Amino acid sequence: MRIGVVAPSGRIEPDVAERASALAAGRAELVIHPQCYAAHGHFAGTDAERAEAFIAMANDPAIDAIWFARGGYGSCRILDLVIPRLDRASRAKAYMGYSDGGSLLGALYRAGIGRPAHGPVLNDIVRDNGVLAVARALDWLVDRAPHALEPSLSARIPAAAFNITILSHLIGTPHQPDLAGHVLMLEEVSEYMYAIDRSLCHITANADIRRVAGIMLGRCSQIPENEVDFGEDEEQVARHWCAVSGIPWLGRADIGHDVANKIVPFG
Amino acid sequence: MRIGVVAPSGRIEPDVAERASALAAGRAELVIHPQCYAAHGHFAGTDAERAEAFIAMANDPAIDAIWFARGGYGSCRILDLVIPRLDRASRAKAYMGYSDGGSLLGALYRAGIGRPAHGPVLNDIVRDNGVLAVARALDWLVDRAPHALEPSLSARIPAAAFNITILSHLIGTPHQPDLAGHVLMLEEVSEYMYAIDRSLCHITANADIRRVAGIMLGRCSQIPENEVDFGEDEEQVARHWCAVSGIPWLGRADIGHDVANKIVPFG
Repeated sequence: MRIGVVAPSGRIEPDVAERASALAAGRAELVIHPQCYAAHGHFAGTDAERAEAFIAMANDPAIDAIWFARGGYGSCRILDLVIPRLDRASRAKAYMGYSDGGSLLGALYRAGIGRPAHGPVLNDIVRDNGVLAVARALDWLVDRAPHALEPSLSARIPAAAFNITILSHLIGTPHQPDLAGHVLMLEEVSEYMYAIDRSLCHITANADIRRVAGIMLGRCSQIPENEVDFGEDEEQVARHWCAVSGIPWLGRADIGHDVANKIVPFG
Repeated sequence: MRIGVVAPSGRIEPDVAERASALAAGRAELVIHPQCYAAHGHFAGTDAERAEAFIAMANDPAIDAIWFARGGYGSCRILDLVIPRLDRASRAKAYMGYSDGGSLLGALYRAGIGRPAHGPVLNDIVRDNGVLAVARALDWLVDRAPHALEPSLSARIPAAAFNITILSHLIGTPHQPDLAGHVLMLEEVSEYMYAIDRSLCHITANADIRRVAGIMLGRCSQIPENEVDFGEDEEQVARHWCAVSGIPWLGRADIGHDVANKIVPFG
C-alpha cells in the first residue's frame, strides 16, 4: 500500500511527515511529495506547484490513495487547474482530507473521480493525542476498518461531509457537488456564530442543496465570542435553517476539527 | 419628501435617528420605524419584526424612499419573508444601504422591485465626519444630486455594488441578482486577505457573474493581519481573479466602509 501525500492548501514541517510515516510503518508507505514542504505566502507552493503535485500523485498508477497533508487555505484556487487533467489512474483512488481540502473533495465528487472521504489529515498528528486521528485515517485508508467510520453511516443512504464555510464557497460554482439524496454532515471551527448562521442561510437557500436527504451537524469548535452574544448555539442555528428550508434535521454527526473526527466516505 | 427608515440587520440608538433627522430637516422628513430600536440578540428585533417593518414601509404609498438604518448582520434572514409580500407601492421607491443590507438590495434587484442603491446608512453619522456620508445620502435620496454618485458611473452601462462577503453569500441562491453586462463594484471591511481571496474565487467562479461587464474594486479596510502574511494586497487579488475568470478588470471604485462612500444606484 502506497499512500501519496500532497498539500493542496498549507505546508507541513518535515518532522510531521516523519512521525506519520513512522506510525504507518509496516502497514503502508507514505510517499511524501516534496511540494508538501514548499512555501509561497499562505500556501504550500504556488498554485501551479500545488496543482502539479496533486496531478502527478493522482495520475500515478503506483500510488493507491491520496492523503491531504493539511488544511489551511488554498485548495479552491487549484480546482480548475487540477480536475480537467486527472486521468484513468486517478479514478481508482480514495482521497482523504477535510477543512479547506473540502473544496477538492467536493470538486472530485462532482466530477465523479475516485472516492473522496472527509477525514483526518496528516498534520492532525500535531494535536494532543493526534496519533488517534492519524491512526484512524490509516485504518480506513489501508483496511477500510468499520470502526473508523462516522457511526451513523448507512449502506443504504449516501453521505458527504464538509466544513460549513468551505461548502458555502462551492455553492453556485461549476464544482458544487450533486448531493441530492445524501446525508449532509457539516462542521465548523473558529467562525463567529453569526458567520455560521450566515453560511447556513446561504447553503440551505440553494435549490440543489434542498434536495439532500437531511443535515447532520458535527462539532463547531473555537467559536469566538461575539460583540453581541448571538443568543443561539450552533444546533439551534442548524435546526432553524433546516426548518426554514424544509431539509430534514437528522441530529449530530461525529466529525469536527479534532482528533475524534470520524471518516465520511462520499457516496 | 418622506423617507422611511427601517433596520433589516442591526439596531440603532435613538440619538442617531435624532441627529440624522436634524440634518434632513427642511429637505425631508425621516419616518423612523420604531423597529429600528428593537433588540433581539444580534438583530433589530426578530426576523418577523424586521420583515414586517420593512414590508409596512415599502408598501406605504405615503413613503417616498426606504433608507436602511445600518448594516451589521441579518438581512439575508428575511429575504424570503419580505420579497413575496412587496406590492405596487414598493416598486416606486429607491432603497439605500450597503454592507449587510446588500442582501436585500440584491434580492430587490433580482425581483425587479424599485431602485436599489448602494450608499451610506443612517448610522454612518456616528463615524468621524459622518455628516458627510449622511448628507451625501440625502443629496441623492432627495435631489438625485450627481455629485453624490460614484464618479465612474455611466448612463450607458448599468452598475451594481456589493460588499464582497455579502455577494458571496447570495451566489447560487434564488436571490442572486442578474448582473449580466453590469459594472460590478466590490468593497470589504474587517476580513482577512485570505478570506477576501476565497470570496473572490467563489464569486468569479459563478457562471452568471462571469457575464458582468467588469469588476471595479472599492476600498478594503481594516484587514486584520494574517498569521502568515498573504503576500498580495486586495488589488492584486482582485486582478488575479479577473484574469482567471476572464472578467475585465476596470480599476478602482470610490466606495467602501467609510464616509467617502459614494452612491451606486443599481441598473
